[in-house]
Amino acid sequence: MDKIIRVNLSEGTITTEPVPEKYRALGGRSLTGKIILDEVDPGCEPLGLRNKLVFAPGLLGGSFLSSSSRLSVGGKSPLTGGIKEANAGGTAAGALSKLGIKALIIEGESPLDYFQYLYVDQEKIELRPAEMAGQGVYSAAKLLFERYGDKASLILIGPGGERGYRAAGITNTDVQGRPSRFLGRGGLGAVMGVKGLKAIVIDPTGAEAIDYHDRKAFQELNKEMVKLLKENPVTGGVYPKYGTAAMATRTNAIHALPTRNFSAGSFECANRIDGEYLHYIITSRGGAGDTTHACMPGCVIKCSNIYPDAEGKELVAPLEYETIGLMGSNLSIGNLDDIARLNYLCNDLGLDTIEMGATIGVAMDQGLLTFGDADGAAALLGEVAEDTLLGKVLGQGALITGKVLGSRRIPVAKGQSMPAYDPRGVKGLGVTYATSPMGADHTAGNTIRAEVDHTDPAPQPALSRRAQPLAMIADFMGLCLFVMPALGAHLDKLGQICEQYCGLKISGDELLAAAEKALQVEREFNRRAGLSPAQDRLPEFMMDEPLPVSGSVFDVSLDELRKINEE
Amino acid sequence: MDKIIRVNLSEGTITTEPVPEKYRALGGRSLTGKIILDEVDPGCEPLGLRNKLVFAPGLLGGSFLSSSSRLSVGGKSPLTGGIKEANAGGTAAGALSKLGIKALIIEGESPLDYFQYLYVDQEKIELRPAEMAGQGVYSAAKLLFERYGDKASLILIGPGGERGYRAAGITNTDVQGRPSRFLGRGGLGAVMGVKGLKAIVIDPTGAEAIDYHDRKAFQELNKEMVKLLKENPVTGGVYPKYGTAAMATRTNAIHALPTRNFSAGSFECANRIDGEYLHYIITSRGGAGDTTHACMPGCVIKCSNIYPDAEGKELVAPLEYETIGLMGSNLSIGNLDDIARLNYLCNDLGLDTIEMGATIGVAMDQGLLTFGDADGAAALLGEVAEDTLLGKVLGQGALITGKVLGSRRIPVAKGQSMPAYDPRGVKGLGVTYATSPMGADHTAGNTIRAEVDHTDPAPQPALSRRAQPLAMIADFMGLCLFVMPALGAHLDKLGQICEQYCGLKISGDELLAAAEKALQVEREFNRRAGLSPAQDRLPEFMMDEPLPVSGSVFDVSLDELRKINEE
Repeated sequence: MDKIIRVNLSEGTITTEPVPEKYRALGGRSLTGKIILDEVDPGCEPLGLRNKLVFAPGLLGGSFLSSSSRLSVGGKSPLTGGIKEANAGGTAAGALSKLGIKALIIEGESPLDYFQYLYVDQEKIELRPAEMAGQGVYSAAKLLFERYGDKASLILIGPGGERGYRAAGITNTDVQGRPSRFLGRGGLGAVMGVKGLKAIVIDPTGAEAIDYHDRKAFQELNKEMVKLLKENPVTGGVYPKYGTAAMATRTNAIHALPTRNFSAGSFECANRIDGEYLHYIITSRGGAGDTTHACMPGCVIKCSNIYPDAEGKELVAPLEYETIGLMGSNLSIGNLDDIARLNYLCNDLGLDTIEMGATIGVAMDQGLLTFGDADGAAALLGEVAEDTLLGKVLGQGALITGKVLGSRRIPVAKGQSMPAYDPRGVKGLGVTYATSPMGADHTAGNTIRAEVDHTDPAPQPALSRRAQPLAMIADFMGLCLFVMPALGAHLDKLGQICEQYCGLKISGDELLAAAEKALQVEREFNRRAGLSPAQDRLPEFMMDEPLPVSGSVFDVSLDELRKINEE
Repeated sequence: MDKIIRVNLSEGTITTEPVPEKYRALGGRSLTGKIILDEVDPGCEPLGLRNKLVFAPGLLGGSFLSSSSRLSVGGKSPLTGGIKEANAGGTAAGALSKLGIKALIIEGESPLDYFQYLYVDQEKIELRPAEMAGQGVYSAAKLLFERYGDKASLILIGPGGERGYRAAGITNTDVQGRPSRFLGRGGLGAVMGVKGLKAIVIDPTGAEAIDYHDRKAFQELNKEMVKLLKENPVTGGVYPKYGTAAMATRTNAIHALPTRNFSAGSFECANRIDGEYLHYIITSRGGAGDTTHACMPGCVIKCSNIYPDAEGKELVAPLEYETIGLMGSNLSIGNLDDIARLNYLCNDLGLDTIEMGATIGVAMDQGLLTFGDADGAAALLGEVAEDTLLGKVLGQGALITGKVLGSRRIPVAKGQSMPAYDPRGVKGLGVTYATSPMGADHTAGNTIRAEVDHTDPAPQPALSRRAQPLAMIADFMGLCLFVMPALGAHLDKLGQICEQYCGLKISGDELLAAAEKALQVEREFNRRAGLSPAQDRLPEFMMDEPLPVSGSVFDVSLDELRKINEE
């Protein structure tokens, strides 16, 4: 990966640049973060001319190590007002890596009155008119695959992103071409939309095979890694069988399952939306259903799934825990078919299911709809699809929806909706929501696997503080976080395999140091953007309102929270 | 003024406290600011339990010096997220002063399911059920005056504040009992609303006469002050005759009159909404009309007016320049009757006309309505009155309305709408909008009277920097800013008269030092609240989009702006 592609939409120019020395050891989240700090006016309007979007594979992008080709996208978030990185599996990062593209910088905004898409292959990079603008991601992807063949990878936004909705994410295609691997958080789909870019088509056909620094050693170590992944009870057992939905049983048990706009913490129908039931439904229905699906080539964990309807026809893929928590229990919807349908609608609009689930939860809480009304929730997404006034409000996410509706119970941190862990039940993750440069983000330092009392405030700041750089390591290597239960204790091996792949000599300790440095880069951007430790806190209703079953409030002290970024 | 009244609405308790030594030399804005810094969690939710509202007369409150009894209210603003003080003339500050009340602190929030009002007289202070909740300010005031007689002063909010609309202000009554002297900015009406407080009734009947430190010397110096005010061409000539509307001629000439959502800078119908035309209409219609009206007892400037309809019946009082600019030219409405009608509707709902004018301007710009459609604008206010979804959006002010409608042209600084000076035409005021702890606020340091080229960026930071503490002096003394053209050059005399009134020995230089210190208090609160110099800037469209006639953009550099609060 020896080049950076810069697309200036204001000028309509595309340039290829060598990778500066300072970016060589960076990838994924650490690279998008550094480029944004170096190039983006931190005080700029996120949905304005001065913001940029940076796509980057991780350091291991394109390698055949399991789960190593996640795609990162970074920019200034229209939800948090700070720096944001979102990442997903799928095929686009691998395709960029094969073409030697270490980063793709999208800057300026198109003066044209129509959307464009970017076409990238071995020989050319071009902006082309996007006649599929206005279409949902499923039909837009279909059209692009018909044109460019199924070797292509797609990155695209839906109507939500086109319209600048702050709940909009960016998606990319999986191994079978589904446009449903979402870089969902932070509203970065809206940033792509206001720039006038509908999609990126990457066709790696004809690219030379990637030149491994030491392919033989890599193959050896990879075998060891696969063994570690397969032998670990989580990555080799729970995830392949039940997928992320397995988490619902656990969060429900510890009163951390978002329920009815984060008012309950556990859900009476949890056993109808958890991993075991999901597994039962998929296997009993058969047809297109699949409980063990890989979102990117070569993944041995295969936590993903294909969820079929009663006739065995694919309804949505994947159906993930975060969606189940936010669009299921959080809306008091205890039926996986309903959740799958809402998931599909969000996907097609290009909206983040976490942000939209939280938003609809707030709307239900304010009486716009009854909790549990799945048809009503679908109708709200219909309003979003039709861009009615109500749809425009909801499309801006939970914070603006809550302000408009006069809610005092808006489950956000730094303006971004909380994922499916009520921070009163998993307080370490609450610390991460409050203090991560990313806002409320469960992938920025999840503490749920720590063997502690998750409602005891005392150990949580330290737990979150340790989890945040570990998440960063995964994010800059392009690794799925789910390898961490198996490989997180073997950072030296991760360093070795990185060297074997790309020649970057790095020890486990150096990986940690690099992660700390990348976090500092993000904090520095946020500091310059005007975010400060004063905003490192959770909504007051979570500090004041005990969860009814556990009696727990979020009581990690503001001083403790503030300290984390004042270090 | 020897006591502080503390009303805790959570507990339903009212306590009377002596004035701590550290607050003795403070008043109005400097006192509300210091109490808020001392008592309010800076990271709190402005519309939550932890915010407080502090009412305070200035140091000269209750004295018979002209224009010296403005009422300040402070709190954390739901628009800016920072500290806010708003002030107005009227009678409430005088009434509080007569009762010896230096500050009235409203804290907590009522657990009751009905609104209350606070009754204050010489003998008792009580919370009483507000059966006039839900009523507009005009009918609510009428009911309270019927009950308590016309010696009472009222502070109250409208339905906008009750519903927590961020565009809501707080009003108080003038000499004739009109509830139209608005402490309009910052959304502090919403803070009062969420606390469950509809009104404050202050009856000073029976209070002992205020004990002047040296009444005789005060009387002497007052004569001199009156002479200065009457001889000054602005305070003795322009203001009494034309009122603030005189400003329209000037801003139109220098391309600073907000026109069609801040897109033009001058308005083809300016001569139908300026001071001379207003004067002509009022005098030719006669009846209740009055061009020279005092908003508080003893004011010799009398810049206020009573605007009559064609039959001579009072339509609204006052009709001020800021309303004319924001609800007139900014909406392309060139008819004073239309503007007066919109003004009355806003007043009755308890909404800030600046915020609502800017909001409707954004809505028109986004195609919700045609520019110039006065009936349409009134219909939008009807939506607000009826609390429809559109009304709920508009009631949140220009920033949220603009975000929902996808606007890229939102004229706000720190979330608060700009008053009637386009900062591309008066760049010094643009510096104030960007850098004042108050957000976009023309009363926080207006540079329009400086004899410079207002489009030359070079001198503006220094001009704004000098104007900000002068505004603070007026605001902590309780003085109307309009005395400053005549008295601003006589700070020593202002210090003397202060000593003669309340015994506080203070020189002109010490007044300036006290103002700087009060500004530092505000900055410190904002720093702790997470606002930083990174937010000290104006919207990008004002940096990028030249006004068509003048070609001017807001080009004071970000570095220059940042320096002001980094000092």
